[in-house]
Amino acid sequence: MAVQTVATPTVDLGPAAALSCRECGHRVPLGPVFACEECFGPLEIAYDFSAYDTEKLRARIESGPANIWRYAPLLPVPADVAGKPNLNPGWTPLVRADRLAAELGVTGGLFVKDDSGNPTHSFKDRVVAQALEAARAFGFTTLSCSSTGNLAGAVGAAAARAGLRSCVFIPHDLEQGKVVMAAVYGGELVGIEGNYDDVNRFCSELIGDPAGEGWGFVNVNLRPYYAEGSKTLAYEICEQLGWKLPDQLVVPIASGSQLTKIDKGLKELIALGLVEDRPYKIFGAQAEGCSPVAAAYKAGHDVVRPQKPDTIAKSLAIGNPADGPYVLDIARRTGGAVEDVTDPQIVDAIKLLARTEGIFAETAGGVTVGVTQKLIESGALDPSLTTVVLNTGDGLKTLDAVAGTGLTATIRPNLDSFREAGLA
Amino acid sequence: MAVQTVATPTVDLGPAAALSCRECGHRVPLGPVFACEECFGPLEIAYDFSAYDTEKLRARIESGPANIWRYAPLLPVPADVAGKPNLNPGWTPLVRADRLAAELGVTGGLFVKDDSGNPTHSFKDRVVAQALEAARAFGFTTLSCSSTGNLAGAVGAAAARAGLRSCVFIPHDLEQGKVVMAAVYGGELVGIEGNYDDVNRFCSELIGDPAGEGWGFVNVNLRPYYAEGSKTLAYEICEQLGWKLPDQLVVPIASGSQLTKIDKGLKELIALGLVEDRPYKIFGAQAEGCSPVAAAYKAGHDVVRPQKPDTIAKSLAIGNPADGPYVLDIARRTGGAVEDVTDPQIVDAIKLLARTEGIFAETAGGVTVGVTQKLIESGALDPSLTTVVLNTGDGLKTLDAVAGTGLTATIRPNLDSFREAGLA
Repeated sequence: MAVQTVATPTVDLGPAAALSCRECGHRVPLGPVFACEECFGPLEIAYDFSAYDTEKLRARIESGPANIWRYAPLLPVPADVAGKPNLNPGWTPLVRADRLAAELGVTGGLFVKDDSGNPTHSFKDRVVAQALEAARAFGFTTLSCSSTGNLAGAVGAAAARAGLRSCVFIPHDLEQGKVVMAAVYGGELVGIEGNYDDVNRFCSELIGDPAGEGWGFVNVNLRPYYAEGSKTLAYEICEQLGWKLPDQLVVPIASGSQLTKIDKGLKELIALGLVEDRPYKIFGAQAEGCSPVAAAYKAGHDVVRPQKPDTIAKSLAIGNPADGPYVLDIARRTGGAVEDVTDPQIVDAIKLLARTEGIFAETAGGVTVGVTQKLIESGALDPSLTTVVLNTGDGLKTLDAVAGTGLTATIRPNLDSFREAGLA
Repeated sequence: MAVQTVATPTVDLGPAAALSCRECGHRVPLGPVFACEECFGPLEIAYDFSAYDTEKLRARIESGPANIWRYAPLLPVPADVAGKPNLNPGWTPLVRADRLAAELGVTGGLFVKDDSGNPTHSFKDRVVAQALEAARAFGFTTLSCSSTGNLAGAVGAAAARAGLRSCVFIPHDLEQGKVVMAAVYGGELVGIEGNYDDVNRFCSELIGDPAGEGWGFVNVNLRPYYAEGSKTLAYEICEQLGWKLPDQLVVPIASGSQLTKIDKGLKELIALGLVEDRPYKIFGAQAEGCSPVAAAYKAGHDVVRPQKPDTIAKSLAIGNPADGPYVLDIARRTGGAVEDVTDPQIVDAIKLLARTEGIFAETAGGVTVGVTQKLIESGALDPSLTTVVLNTGDGLKTLDAVAGTGLTATIRPNLDSFREAGLA
């Protein structure tokens, strides 16, 4: 009897049954842990989806709310999650991008999954929303993270809505604009005298200390839950395509977690019978100034050699991406590729997307659109197939990247001046 | 027969039957005109909703897309509008704001209609989307406006998506950040040597000149269509409340058009039987530094005396609001009020909303939240009734307003420093 009690999860996180090591498969009960006690491999959520009937599940999803909680049956969250105070991200537009397609020569259908429509205008709201539910389930009272940008705002906003304390750690010399965006939600915003690595090292120290008790670090001790949020991108893309897999996806790579979870989400939809099982290709996109995975891919390596980032695509600037090897495996297994573009190419791609589709992407969106263009030119991406390109953030957060953009003309307020400028 | 041909609209804008003068009722066929030829009063859309069955209409709306086009049967747009390339704004979250309610003492249910989720992050996407359809219907090839902010981006983005030329006129000395936000979409962005009044005067001149042929100025010659977009805020609020009227709404006032069209939308829902006919109160919100309507309301006047704006709430800074008298009438008729708040109160309200609900509003949102607080304190707004407060824009566009927000602590990267700062 006592054994049975131990085996029963003490927390209600819906279909999440246990944590399972991605390397050795060792299973442990759901809890705020992220590394395997046997092999130090990363832990991820193991689900029990066995009770689902395909058509009932599809109907339940379709009648759900216009946010990620329509997929609550497939996420590590309690069934009543939609009624709790949270930011309700997701169900962002899948934009049919015919004008961009014409410029790139894509004939098979080109779509932009535009995640700038999330509450704090980046895909981070999806992952933080999962971490928040895990924090509530484990009784944490402080939501925390290390960040240099999007994540800080997403954590601050989610904690504010939920009524949790937040404490976000950033390098002390961050640009004032980014500090304001993170500080406005009223949580603790602590500047660390050091660089981003120092911030991360300090956070790991804090987790192991009694001072960190009750603290949920969304991308550390809550990482297995947090990471699952990226699956919802895969779910939404397929549902918005009419429950169909796209032929090709172009996904940005920072830690690589998002790409691996999109692959996981697609495989789940196939296993659940919600989409037809047919091949898809996943392409990874990096900036040349931080391209450890692209470099490994091109060199035919299985391991990723760390780089020191130097690119305007700050939200992708992780020099030692934890999920790099998994990304390489997925790109090769699905027939995709990993490619990178230069900073000027990123800026050009931001402008191309804005000019053709009216979508103002952050630098990460410039990376995916630029890489798509490069992959078409090299023949790696087939323009006759359905292609989905991710934009994971908002141009308003990286205005500096396009600061050179300006007035096309300056005139005096009269028609003669208007005509002289050739505007008529 | 010839008369019949003339009476038939030559353009397909769905249920829009004619233009009708708000002052004298004179009707003219649908076209790119905005002032009555008889009395110079403003023209607005007259609809033919006579064929609608209430329950069939409700079902049609509920099965429609998660954007404003679910209300296409009630808007001046063709029935197939959702399939055309446009930004598809709307269906933004109606956030149940329990933590803000607790701070303000609202017990009857407080909601924030958060329009920062629109494609270019302001409610302007709603109105521009209507103007775009009118422009297509009238064969215009250039979409234009005068603007100092949100509208410029909304027009640039909508034209880009639709593949129309855009030409936006702004004062030549606008802040660089705002220029970038408008310029990135690649249309013509013309700086006028002069102030905003000079820009407007020039646009009126251009409309009357052959050089302006084929140009749709969204808020001038397309204004009757454009303005209807604000009705969708009323529709969404009621549908999101479960097809119920809220008891009280707090709406920002710039030109006053939005408030009058929200009232129009609510009355349409009542007339169509989609909501129960019961009283609602509409409150108008201004910044003290540009409060011509609030001043007239408090003085008991029917006319509005123009002011020279001086406030951080730039998106509301219209000193001579065209719809001011109509706003006064609606506030008085419904039992509402018009109130204003100071710039420091606006900043405090932005921070209050962010801290309690994780919503980062632009200054206009600070105005409505601040005014709500003031109206509760004065007893004008009943905290025991259902109240909806509008946030019409995004804090990322008015970062300067909260520039004083910053780090709560700076520490060295170790636990001792963390404890010394009192963060444990």
